[in-house]
Amino acid sequence: MKKELTIGLFGFGVVGQGLHQVISQTKGIKASIKKIVIKHADKNRTLPKQHFTTEANDVLYDPDINVIVELIDDAQAAFTIVKQALKNGKDVVTANKKMLAENLQEIYELQKITGKSVLYEGSVCGSIPIIRNLEEYYDNDLITSIEGIFNGSTNYILTKIFEEKKSYASALAKAQELGFAESNPDLDVLGFDPKFKLIIAIAHTFGIFVKPEHVINLGIANITDTDVRFARENGFTIKLIARAFKQGGKIYGFVAPQLVSQQHTLFSVRNEFNAVQVEGAFAEKQLFVGKGAGSFPTASAVLSDISALNYHYQYEYKKRTQGAVPEFSNALQVEALVSFEKGKGITKDSFEHFQEGYAWQGQEILRGFIALEKLAAISKQPGISILLAPDARLNPIKIKQEAEAII
Amino acid sequence: MKKELTIGLFGFGVVGQGLHQVISQTKGIKASIKKIVIKHADKNRTLPKQHFTTEANDVLYDPDINVIVELIDDAQAAFTIVKQALKNGKDVVTANKKMLAENLQEIYELQKITGKSVLYEGSVCGSIPIIRNLEEYYDNDLITSIEGIFNGSTNYILTKIFEEKKSYASALAKAQELGFAESNPDLDVLGFDPKFKLIIAIAHTFGIFVKPEHVINLGIANITDTDVRFARENGFTIKLIARAFKQGGKIYGFVAPQLVSQQHTLFSVRNEFNAVQVEGAFAEKQLFVGKGAGSFPTASAVLSDISALNYHYQYEYKKRTQGAVPEFSNALQVEALVSFEKGKGITKDSFEHFQEGYAWQGQEILRGFIALEKLAAISKQPGISILLAPDARLNPIKIKQEAEAII
Repeated sequence: MKKELTIGLFGFGVVGQGLHQVISQTKGIKASIKKIVIKHADKNRTLPKQHFTTEANDVLYDPDINVIVELIDDAQAAFTIVKQALKNGKDVVTANKKMLAENLQEIYELQKITGKSVLYEGSVCGSIPIIRNLEEYYDNDLITSIEGIFNGSTNYILTKIFEEKKSYASALAKAQELGFAESNPDLDVLGFDPKFKLIIAIAHTFGIFVKPEHVINLGIANITDTDVRFARENGFTIKLIARAFKQGGKIYGFVAPQLVSQQHTLFSVRNEFNAVQVEGAFAEKQLFVGKGAGSFPTASAVLSDISALNYHYQYEYKKRTQGAVPEFSNALQVEALVSFEKGKGITKDSFEHFQEGYAWQGQEILRGFIALEKLAAISKQPGISILLAPDARLNPIKIKQEAEAII
Repeated sequence: MKKELTIGLFGFGVVGQGLHQVISQTKGIKASIKKIVIKHADKNRTLPKQHFTTEANDVLYDPDINVIVELIDDAQAAFTIVKQALKNGKDVVTANKKMLAENLQEIYELQKITGKSVLYEGSVCGSIPIIRNLEEYYDNDLITSIEGIFNGSTNYILTKIFEEKKSYASALAKAQELGFAESNPDLDVLGFDPKFKLIIAIAHTFGIFVKPEHVINLGIANITDTDVRFARENGFTIKLIARAFKQGGKIYGFVAPQLVSQQHTLFSVRNEFNAVQVEGAFAEKQLFVGKGAGSFPTASAVLSDISALNYHYQYEYKKRTQGAVPEFSNALQVEALVSFEKGKGITKDSFEHFQEGYAWQGQEILRGFIALEKLAAISKQPGISILLAPDARLNPIKIKQEAEAII
């Protein structure tokens, strides 16, 4: 039986406005937005005043409203809204990856206690239906790894830098102008945004909840012009890649920029597009590509969640109930290139297995296998930039195996 | 509530054997194969004799068996099995695209009458979860087009011809050896197999049932060495592309080989991989890539269907209930290259809008907009090969618009 949905919407930014438009243009969906909660009553809006309120409780305690759609920036405020909505017997749709990544276990438990549903397809890779596919379609396949480009604005920036020889600053400004970058660009360029998404994906891929502070994220903010020239002259591009994989009963996962050759699946994923590659024992490699940013792509994911609530859909976190739940670990060595102004960085002693060093255009570039946690520490030193080595060592299982072989 | 599944399996070829192995290795699935119906009792099998029977009614009338999984080659026999299974109150999982394409409307109606479910994810593009995503995830988005590489064995053949300079015959033999080609290769190389899949996809994309005889399929069997050289020297590859799109309230769809440039999304889809690109009003372009052939990828799709039956899943053919159901039409002009031995083919009068003609290595190549039905008629003349023009005109909406502009 189809359930009639009456929505209380929090936030009326690009995605909120996109959603309003998409709902009004879509046949077959039994849903209407009753009230929109906004922060600033005095801003100019595209809808008449009576649609809005600044009082959260106007919708959280409205018995007519059975679905809360939460599309605000503030993760802490969003979590308060989600908790109250569930306690008040309302289903929730949200696209707030930071809030989800920080509170996923509690949200999971609140769903079990209240029997209400929290859906969040729009939080991971915009329009790509990755959570739904992990939950429903790959519910039985033994997934070994998930990796991809999880952030549209950094991919847009890197594409512009490589294809149009734009500077980092002007590419970032353009991404913000087009609405691809978050209100705080640090979340994107330092790799936090893709990390939040990775954490959500890990829950539905491997059945574990990992806290953001346990997952390492290296961003693109330190990438230098020299790095870009080095990549270009060697036929590579740079992509910010999120990945997680299972090996020996443990789950490994991190976000880092990486040299990517033309043969690599992710090479041709350009601009604001996102991509997710799932590898399973039986389905083998599955690639999903779609727009990861922008109002309509995200709104379409939010709408699909709303539509699923019409049919009382709930995530089951099926991977949690299939055998022993694995542990998360950072005990991993990765093959990386560390570059810095000659003499002002690290020495080859930092590597578990040093491969080679070059001097190139006033820079020193050291390459080898290095412990992931050490790499994270080094990345905080000023003037140091880090890129994972290209392709061959991309395969996370190989990285691990080769690293082990070396010790 | 999870439903305990007892399966009667028809067919024990590559996919059937793959399925048996996948079920036995997968945790969390509540399903067991009780009996396998085979045609030849005397063949050597990988399982003990008591698993098999040659009597269809042994499983169709076994009250313990609540799911029939049909994985045989013969479309007519398969349809008889499906009908009887539904009438006997059993759910069905099948990967038989020919049977489905020929009988989809009747199968749809039988599901409504019996209340039983027929699932067939494995029938379209192997491991790619395209039907499920069209049904569930894109149930509300206004999809304008679907296109892709729907046949693994021809894609494998074309890849080998282009990348390894193999002859057509040796590439076909290799595809058959690897189990990518159907028992009757004509189904693949003449474009029937991708057409059957396209018809199934059309039902879930646009909500209409089209008969195979109404959809035009041009294959790769007539492609000559000259075509391949011509493509290669101009920086193209050739892909067999299935597509359908909606325009002006009508649905157009066909299968044809096409010149594809490096910038095209489908260029890098190689070997036995399939790809589907869905374009919607809000989600915009979504690309799915995965293995389209082979025992495990197809078995994994079949298993996902079986697993969905655990939760009483049924297709709802939602697009049929959302507004007016559109009509299928072949009244379309396409931009094509027609080549043949000098003087032994057609003249430029066959084109609605003739663009240019070249003489090249003893061949004559004519290029222009031509009516799709005329192109199909010409393709039956011996010694004529047909390729759709590259990229720019690939976009089916553009094809139509430009064609209209020309008239």
